[in-house]
Amino acid sequence: MVASALLPELWTEILVPVCAVVGILFSLFQWYVVSRVKLTTDLGASSSAGKNGHEDYLIEEEEGVNDQSVVAKCAEIQTAISEGATSFLFTEYKYVGVFMIFFAGVIFVFLGSVEGFSTENKACTYDAKRICKPALATAAFSTVAFVLGAVTSVLSGFLGMKIATYANARTTLEARKGVGKAFIVAFRSGAVMGFLLAASGLLVLYITINVFKIYYGDDWEGLFEAITGYGLGGSSMALFGRVGGGIYTKAADVGADLVGKIERNIPEDDPRNPAVIADNVGDNVGDIAGMGSDLFGSYAEASCAALVVASISSFGNNHDFTAMCYPLLISSMGILVCLITTLFATDFFEIKVVKEIEPALKNQLIISTVIMTVGIAIVSWVGLPSSFTIFNFGVQKVVKNWQLFLCVCVGLWAGLIIGFVTEYYTSNAYSPVQDVADSCRTGAATNVIFGLALGYKSVIIPIFAIAISIFVSFSFAAMYGVAVAALGMLSTIATGLAIDAYGPISDNAGGIAEMAGMSHRIRERTDALDAAGNTTAAIGKGFAIGSAALVSLALFGAFVSRAGIHTVDVLTPKVIIGLLVGAMLPYWFSAMTMKSVGSAALKMVEEVRRQFNTIPGLMEGTAKPDYATCVKISTDASIKEMIPPGCLVMLTPLIVGFFFGVETLSGVLAGSLVSGVQIAISASNTGGAWDNAKKYIEAGVSEHAKSLGPKGSEPHKAAVIGDTIGDPLKDTSGPSLNILIKLMAVESLVFAPFFATHGGILFKYL
Amino acid sequence: MVASALLPELWTEILVPVCAVVGILFSLFQWYVVSRVKLTTDLGASSSAGKNGHEDYLIEEEEGVNDQSVVAKCAEIQTAISEGATSFLFTEYKYVGVFMIFFAGVIFVFLGSVEGFSTENKACTYDAKRICKPALATAAFSTVAFVLGAVTSVLSGFLGMKIATYANARTTLEARKGVGKAFIVAFRSGAVMGFLLAASGLLVLYITINVFKIYYGDDWEGLFEAITGYGLGGSSMALFGRVGGGIYTKAADVGADLVGKIERNIPEDDPRNPAVIADNVGDNVGDIAGMGSDLFGSYAEASCAALVVASISSFGNNHDFTAMCYPLLISSMGILVCLITTLFATDFFEIKVVKEIEPALKNQLIISTVIMTVGIAIVSWVGLPSSFTIFNFGVQKVVKNWQLFLCVCVGLWAGLIIGFVTEYYTSNAYSPVQDVADSCRTGAATNVIFGLALGYKSVIIPIFAIAISIFVSFSFAAMYGVAVAALGMLSTIATGLAIDAYGPISDNAGGIAEMAGMSHRIRERTDALDAAGNTTAAIGKGFAIGSAALVSLALFGAFVSRAGIHTVDVLTPKVIIGLLVGAMLPYWFSAMTMKSVGSAALKMVEEVRRQFNTIPGLMEGTAKPDYATCVKISTDASIKEMIPPGCLVMLTPLIVGFFFGVETLSGVLAGSLVSGVQIAISASNTGGAWDNAKKYIEAGVSEHAKSLGPKGSEPHKAAVIGDTIGDPLKDTSGPSLNILIKLMAVESLVFAPFFATHGGILFKYL
Repeated sequence: MVASALLPELWTEILVPVCAVVGILFSLFQWYVVSRVKLTTDLGASSSAGKNGHEDYLIEEEEGVNDQSVVAKCAEIQTAISEGATSFLFTEYKYVGVFMIFFAGVIFVFLGSVEGFSTENKACTYDAKRICKPALATAAFSTVAFVLGAVTSVLSGFLGMKIATYANARTTLEARKGVGKAFIVAFRSGAVMGFLLAASGLLVLYITINVFKIYYGDDWEGLFEAITGYGLGGSSMALFGRVGGGIYTKAADVGADLVGKIERNIPEDDPRNPAVIADNVGDNVGDIAGMGSDLFGSYAEASCAALVVASISSFGNNHDFTAMCYPLLISSMGILVCLITTLFATDFFEIKVVKEIEPALKNQLIISTVIMTVGIAIVSWVGLPSSFTIFNFGVQKVVKNWQLFLCVCVGLWAGLIIGFVTEYYTSNAYSPVQDVADSCRTGAATNVIFGLALGYKSVIIPIFAIAISIFVSFSFAAMYGVAVAALGMLSTIATGLAIDAYGPISDNAGGIAEMAGMSHRIRERTDALDAAGNTTAAIGKGFAIGSAALVSLALFGAFVSRAGIHTVDVLTPKVIIGLLVGAMLPYWFSAMTMKSVGSAALKMVEEVRRQFNTIPGLMEGTAKPDYATCVKISTDASIKEMIPPGCLVMLTPLIVGFFFGVETLSGVLAGSLVSGVQIAISASNTGGAWDNAKKYIEAGVSEHAKSLGPKGSEPHKAAVIGDTIGDPLKDTSGPSLNILIKLMAVESLVFAPFFATHGGILFKYL
Repeated sequence: MVASALLPELWTEILVPVCAVVGILFSLFQWYVVSRVKLTTDLGASSSAGKNGHEDYLIEEEEGVNDQSVVAKCAEIQTAISEGATSFLFTEYKYVGVFMIFFAGVIFVFLGSVEGFSTENKACTYDAKRICKPALATAAFSTVAFVLGAVTSVLSGFLGMKIATYANARTTLEARKGVGKAFIVAFRSGAVMGFLLAASGLLVLYITINVFKIYYGDDWEGLFEAITGYGLGGSSMALFGRVGGGIYTKAADVGADLVGKIERNIPEDDPRNPAVIADNVGDNVGDIAGMGSDLFGSYAEASCAALVVASISSFGNNHDFTAMCYPLLISSMGILVCLITTLFATDFFEIKVVKEIEPALKNQLIISTVIMTVGIAIVSWVGLPSSFTIFNFGVQKVVKNWQLFLCVCVGLWAGLIIGFVTEYYTSNAYSPVQDVADSCRTGAATNVIFGLALGYKSVIIPIFAIAISIFVSFSFAAMYGVAVAALGMLSTIATGLAIDAYGPISDNAGGIAEMAGMSHRIRERTDALDAAGNTTAAIGKGFAIGSAALVSLALFGAFVSRAGIHTVDVLTPKVIIGLLVGAMLPYWFSAMTMKSVGSAALKMVEEVRRQFNTIPGLMEGTAKPDYATCVKISTDASIKEMIPPGCLVMLTPLIVGFFFGVETLSGVLAGSLVSGVQIAISASNTGGAWDNAKKYIEAGVSEHAKSLGPKGSEPHKAAVIGDTIGDPLKDTSGPSLNILIKLMAVESLVFAPFFATHGGILFKYL
């Protein structure tokens, strides 16, 4: 008999939801603080606010602080952005909702058919002495879990967008008082999103498990198999969010830049540009809502992968609830750790000058990682038996609690390394981006060649970091180890999302300042916030990709176990062709999404050109452009164009599993994993480097940078071309690939019993 | 007892060398025909030539045919190109020679150490009842085979270059008489190279086997293990040839274009451009010598992979020499088939107008594939027993001769499909390239986005074609099937090389016409030849990549067998990390080669700018540029820059095998295979599409094309940027990746006994 965990079951039952609720309350508190920045034309309300009252104005008075017309203009722009984003998301959710209902039906029918819709209990798969619930129950509960995951994912994205569009104008207004004040507003708003998402994801999952347990009772195998639907729901919504949002934002951005910056020579975010509102809406639906859904999906899938493996390990076999909840305890601890970490940015220290911004954000990562290491040690000590067994493709493997501690840690620290490598390759403080900027001297062609080479090179260290994490965690605790390593990387998700969401909020704040005609000094402050945000966005993408690699490997392992195969031998024809085709899928997918952005951008260009040519007084600023038509073009294009790549990802596992069987599907999953992670990293970093090479030339802070500038010089024009090419790479195709590799794996896992029973018909009958 | 082949051993012994000699004689005959185009200022010699005599002049007289000063100028330029290419290749071979000697030592020491340099005979690995030669013998003979392979590869490349630089000016001169005459000269010269390479590769391999057999006697296992060194030698020289030549040609090309076409607005190949000679030299050392070595390497490796598997199958066990030589018989038949095919282009039909060129080249592929299908049937019927067994990772699998026929055929036809898909995506006769050209309307950024998307998309069908070939051949005859499928794809190599070499020869012919100041009409004819050559070059790259994928899988399988492991299970930590890191290697390699081209091009740009700025009268054409300095820059850069990527490829298998062992190395090989093939295809096709999109706008043959042009228009400038970016993708990093995946596999195969005995020390002692 294996010993059970130190922490009693009751404590676990209480601690997990309490931590989740603390996270949600903290998030609401941050929202409250942000909301005290008043965005109203009512003079009385503004002057009666406590700390934002008149005393503060006297101390830090800056231009325009008391100018109510500017406030009114900001409020108006914010409303336009918020309405555009809300309307797009509702349109997107309408289509996605239809898909969700249809796919819920597919799950129910496919999984129900495994035992011919029998309602009889049966012997368990892994322990024939026990009685488990029928496949029909798994079908029904998986379907429910799928819907819950999908709804949670959609809500995460939607709330994130709401917060961001609530905060953007407030950041602009605070920028009048100084860069520190503006930073705090943007950062707090990011934290609202980060904590809300991490905590609600945990809470919904926790409640779902406990509700399902009422029916499943002792059949934990069936219970946690049904729970995997939650991960599938989360990730499938994330796919549409990332792809749809990504196409939206980049169609608008590329379209606005090609006419505005290159042809008409007007600045970024100039209110005369008809695509400017669509561009700002895009930041919120793509970078905020899409990324929120994406990371929520990773988190849900990593938890599901760990739980499903644990259910057939000694935790599940012995019904040790605390140990079973180890993944949830890690996440609970993560919320507390991130809470403390946030205080370092908002309360313990204060940002006074621009150059403190980037270190403050980077310190968030370091602090959270260091504290979390201690947190993991505590959770591993109290939440795990000192020794236990983990299911490892047919055999049980003995694992010590300190080994599991190392598994989580290696994931956590690999995330930090990936983050810093990403920063090195995408921040213009270091030589790689400076070299790319320098190559603009000889034109756009060399800029593109150097940028692509930089992206390829930036893959090396992250891949070694991921490989080492996999090796350590896999060797210690098989697929469970890999799953908890992924959770380790995602345990500081609240902080990661906070600094990630901070970027687009600052970007929007700058856009609003420009559109509201605020002074040059304010724009400079928001630009400084934005530049730091660019780098943190790249770091966030690095995290997302790294965790996606670990998550999908863990899901892949769980799929293989559930499908009842014990080896995936490359040297069999079925597997090698799967591997080859799987490695091709990221290319196919990228071709679709990049071409979609290109085509949508061309339409946008035509519309923007048309408006400049036909609306008299537009260039002079005397007439207003027709923003709504541009918003509509982006909306229509992204809805239409997200369907083919969505189908590719959702249908591939079904087609391969049904026609070619689980061996080929295993190959496809492994192939898309090892190939997709490389393209995702290189695409994100190439795009980030081009963006910051352009910013490097524009800012002109060093002698070298000045020799390349100023704006409008030949090297700057070459840099703008690179930036435009990078847009779809870093914000559409690159980050969507994370979801491709995760989603195909979790879908295979959910449908594994169906494929194992009815799959591979082509080889059966040939 | 299994039946033996219909063809008696003696006949095989005679037929193979006879076919090889026929190929060489045919090649010499073509050379003789080409040499009748006189390139001399001696009037008497010119007019005394038979068919090129005065009668012909009267019939097809065109401008400048009798102008001896033009002939003298062409001869002078040809000499400069030929001397530049020869001098570069000698420099390259000097460095590569040092490497070759060093690496030969490594092979001998590593393989010799397997049994502690014992000279005692031992029991065979696969059949313990037999006595085999000691590991020391394998070490010695592998080293000799390595040197032979390396020397043959170097000679192939060198002779190809010599022929190409002999033919280029002759093609220019014949263009005065008409496009048909020029085509025939270029095509015949390509055929010289194709047949010489295919035949000499076969002959050297055949002689080596027979000489080694004198020592090995009945120990065929040891004999064919030693022969694998031949493939390693061929491929390692190809690596340096491809990478060094690729950097050389693209540094010169990009440098010449950036200053000449973009800054100074002078035409391509203008004699005032100081980099123009280096550019034309580059075509010969990169596209001709590099590609010759590459395809020779593929051919040698595919043969070695098939032979080493056959030696431990029933062919080897029963000492059935004819069946053992089945791979060589396929190649022999290929030479005869290609010989007939060539006559269709040179004798049976005559090219009269420009639009007949591309169909004539495409027909070469179709005709050779159709006839070869019959040829394979004959060889399979007479060269194989009706039933035999093939070694399949530990067990013997029964195979019928018709199954092996299908294996070869599926490779052959997959090659044709890949060729045509490549043509579809890179020829400007079809919509993909026209769409890319159209996207130039909105500038270079959309051109690049559409071009990258096109490359990604073009991967889909070739990957399915390769996957189907693998599935069929693997299912029928395990790794032997895959190896003969690769040989099937390469069986028409003589024709493939002929149409492939035709491209750079035509390109050079155009350059010479421009430099010699020949009339516009002549340049138009060579341009037409060149445009068709661009597409055939892309098709050639498609073949090279497809065959490389099959070859490296076959080598990988042979390695696994020789290393004594029976499964490569993705779901073990050692294999999955290998897979992940292996999939990263093509990115690392591409980053190196692309950055090398970029840096070398920057140096070239500076030099070309310097000459334009400091040499008075250069732009006016009154002073001559300093070609030699540009040649030296390209030479130095390529020699220096080929070392790091070369080391990456050569050292990776050694380091991984020695420290991490054969399982991880298996993962690395599989990962680099499935990832590298995608990047290679997409890079080649993206580059090819950009090149032809630019040519499409320049040629302006349709209404659509005219609306984008003419030369110098904004869309054309955007297209030139795309073309420049595509240069390193399609001619340096893309094609070098073939060699990366093949070379790592063959190196692993050669060193397999060493790794199996002494490898994996990190895991052994940790």
